[in-house]
Amino acid sequence: MNLLIENATILTVDPQDTVLSNASLAISGNRIVGVGLAPEGFVADRVIDGTDQIVIPGLVNGHTHIPMALFRNYADDLPFWPWLMERIKPAEEHLSPEHVRAGAQLGVLELLQGGVTSFLDMYFFMDQVAAAVEESGIRACLCGGLLDVAGLGEALFKAATDLHDQWHGRADGRITVYLGPHSMYLCSPPYLQEAAQEARTRGIGLHLHLSESRQEVLDSQEHYAKSPVQHLADLGVLERPTAAAHCVHVDAVDQRLLAEHRVRVLHNPTSNLKLANGFAPIPQMLEQGICVALGTDGHASNNNVNLFEEMHLAALIHKGSQEDAEAVPAQMALRMATWNGAQAMGLEEEIGSLEVGKKADVVVLDARRPHYWPKHNPVAAVVYSAQAGDVRYVLVDGKLVVEDYEVRTLNVSETLAQGEALAQDLVRRAHA
Amino acid sequence: MNLLIENATILTVDPQDTVLSNASLAISGNRIVGVGLAPEGFVADRVIDGTDQIVIPGLVNGHTHIPMALFRNYADDLPFWPWLMERIKPAEEHLSPEHVRAGAQLGVLELLQGGVTSFLDMYFFMDQVAAAVEESGIRACLCGGLLDVAGLGEALFKAATDLHDQWHGRADGRITVYLGPHSMYLCSPPYLQEAAQEARTRGIGLHLHLSESRQEVLDSQEHYAKSPVQHLADLGVLERPTAAAHCVHVDAVDQRLLAEHRVRVLHNPTSNLKLANGFAPIPQMLEQGICVALGTDGHASNNNVNLFEEMHLAALIHKGSQEDAEAVPAQMALRMATWNGAQAMGLEEEIGSLEVGKKADVVVLDARRPHYWPKHNPVAAVVYSAQAGDVRYVLVDGKLVVEDYEVRTLNVSETLAQGEALAQDLVRRAHA
Repeated sequence: MNLLIENATILTVDPQDTVLSNASLAISGNRIVGVGLAPEGFVADRVIDGTDQIVIPGLVNGHTHIPMALFRNYADDLPFWPWLMERIKPAEEHLSPEHVRAGAQLGVLELLQGGVTSFLDMYFFMDQVAAAVEESGIRACLCGGLLDVAGLGEALFKAATDLHDQWHGRADGRITVYLGPHSMYLCSPPYLQEAAQEARTRGIGLHLHLSESRQEVLDSQEHYAKSPVQHLADLGVLERPTAAAHCVHVDAVDQRLLAEHRVRVLHNPTSNLKLANGFAPIPQMLEQGICVALGTDGHASNNNVNLFEEMHLAALIHKGSQEDAEAVPAQMALRMATWNGAQAMGLEEEIGSLEVGKKADVVVLDARRPHYWPKHNPVAAVVYSAQAGDVRYVLVDGKLVVEDYEVRTLNVSETLAQGEALAQDLVRRAHA
Repeated sequence: MNLLIENATILTVDPQDTVLSNASLAISGNRIVGVGLAPEGFVADRVIDGTDQIVIPGLVNGHTHIPMALFRNYADDLPFWPWLMERIKPAEEHLSPEHVRAGAQLGVLELLQGGVTSFLDMYFFMDQVAAAVEESGIRACLCGGLLDVAGLGEALFKAATDLHDQWHGRADGRITVYLGPHSMYLCSPPYLQEAAQEARTRGIGLHLHLSESRQEVLDSQEHYAKSPVQHLADLGVLERPTAAAHCVHVDAVDQRLLAEHRVRVLHNPTSNLKLANGFAPIPQMLEQGICVALGTDGHASNNNVNLFEEMHLAALIHKGSQEDAEAVPAQMALRMATWNGAQAMGLEEEIGSLEVGKKADVVVLDARRPHYWPKHNPVAAVVYSAQAGDVRYVLVDGKLVVEDYEVRTLNVSETLAQGEALAQDLVRRAHA
């Protein structure tokens, strides 16, 4: 199908951060074929009027545990240990593939409705997440979580490599698979090395948690006499393309190591605030040329997977914490939510910006709403004021998956009802 | 008119923080007459189905300069002095009553659409703001800004008292008027005392800025050898009911003074972050029993007047900055955005909670959207995930001003076009 969006404001997030007014975006099949003007002779099967609409690249949510949608609003305003041990873990212990499928569908519904076209996920029963990705039309890089605690190491490793065998490249290429060694504190050194080795053999990357809390760093110093970043570097783990969530407590030496190894840092501002971990040194990491993407983390440490909120926070909180009003300007926050996220997934050639030849992952925001007026600066409007609810159209891989605010690929009422039923079921089991 | 909302989840924000399920809210004329059940014999002229809807008290935006809507996205990511002197001031110098009217209409449109039913405002040409309040159906406490710089002191004082003479109690009592001495750095000591005296004579309160930046505190120490809070206390200003915006840089002694004088602190998290002023010690002030309300500040230091974002930030940022996951729990953030805001406006007997006898300022949120599911905790859902765009119905003083997401009292397209035209006019004049 040939689709044309015309008369729109387009934030391309190309290398020059080009912003176009009264411009067209032409899509043929799953590719962008024109930005600014449609190519000569282009005949559109469908035209979307872009008057008072802002077009941006599909957002990339760089760090999720999407089935945890079932735990939204289930454990709030609690310190980490009671949060984990008294609320989340007792419920998680009863998870079945059925729960994971329902949670993934609910989470993906929310992602699409909020303009997220790709996400980088780590959890259990990931084949269920893959099925939800396939049916919903979203794009994802999926990782089976690897933990060698409680004798789970081997089974989880098998599940993670099975996931790669069965799902990598599936759904017209919308699904890719990384390995997900959870963290240096839930994976032993040999297990981490085994994961890195397996990723090398398979030619894929890693998705892990890194230096999230002060405690993690203290424990690492105590056990290994080095920081978590240094520990992973010394084990050779960072030789693989690595997307590392959090990186809150990283000192100058750690930051240099992250830069040298071209680690993609996944910044999760809401989660870091909500779990009281603090402020990642994002301006410093950006200055060192580190690629920083944005994520929401799971619903239990965020309450939602609204990436507009993360953009908003990323642009605001570092100005406050570093008392520097120029920290993380709006255009950088937008780049973190799009192009940098594409890099974290290893898909920078395919998605993350609106350029000719790229896959058509596109979001159209309804800028008729009052918070977009007057029209002094559309980038500032998107980063500081846009709401997920302004998302009017979403294309993934050239297909319209959200049309006039409604997700077309999932049965919405069934997804909500199923999410509710299985969440209540989990809570019942946890309390039984 | 008798209006009934039935089958709803109701967050009353009453003294017990009561949350009701499958409950009714009954309104007769401009008053709430039933919460939970309608009173016996109540006959509704209009029924709103509250299935999968969450009902909350109308939000109170405790600190705005609403005509600055014209400056949205006009000056971003800049340090304070270039922001003020090179961008905002040169444009503000050309403000006319016509600009202020257009800005106020645009700002009020955004407030209503985002569930704000009352706001506490300070600016110039405030009779224009009053007219916009009257026509739009919103509630406001308005203050003519008082500055005795550049020979403006006397004229502004007259405008501020004229505003009180002409508008206090108007629009069925929806408009009240305070005096607005800008700050201790733009008002001399005698001018501050004159404002406090005038407020006493008229039996009204004060709305001012206080201890917003480190520089303000340093300058105050240099000029008066005391903090801004101590300075105002010593001048007797805080004897009047005072709503003080910001209070970011307040030490333990300042906090005790604020508590003793029952000052209402107006917390503006976005503005404090965006202008790089830092983090107000909100958990400490709450612990001392200080009433903390929420505000957005003007559009030039925020980009919008979305109070859901401020709730969200208030519940998150102090957890991060104080590394305490229990700081500002969700229910407290909701209280700051409603009941505490009512106190800041001196209207705690009239609005701020859903209780029988109070005026019907009510917001209905559409919780059919995926970010409300599963339904573990509606308070967490509203504070951490609700978007301004979820606001489906708004009642102010018993009148439906937003119906099915649309503001009914203002001409939306005309308001947007007029805002755009006059904003561009200002920019042209500033650059001429």
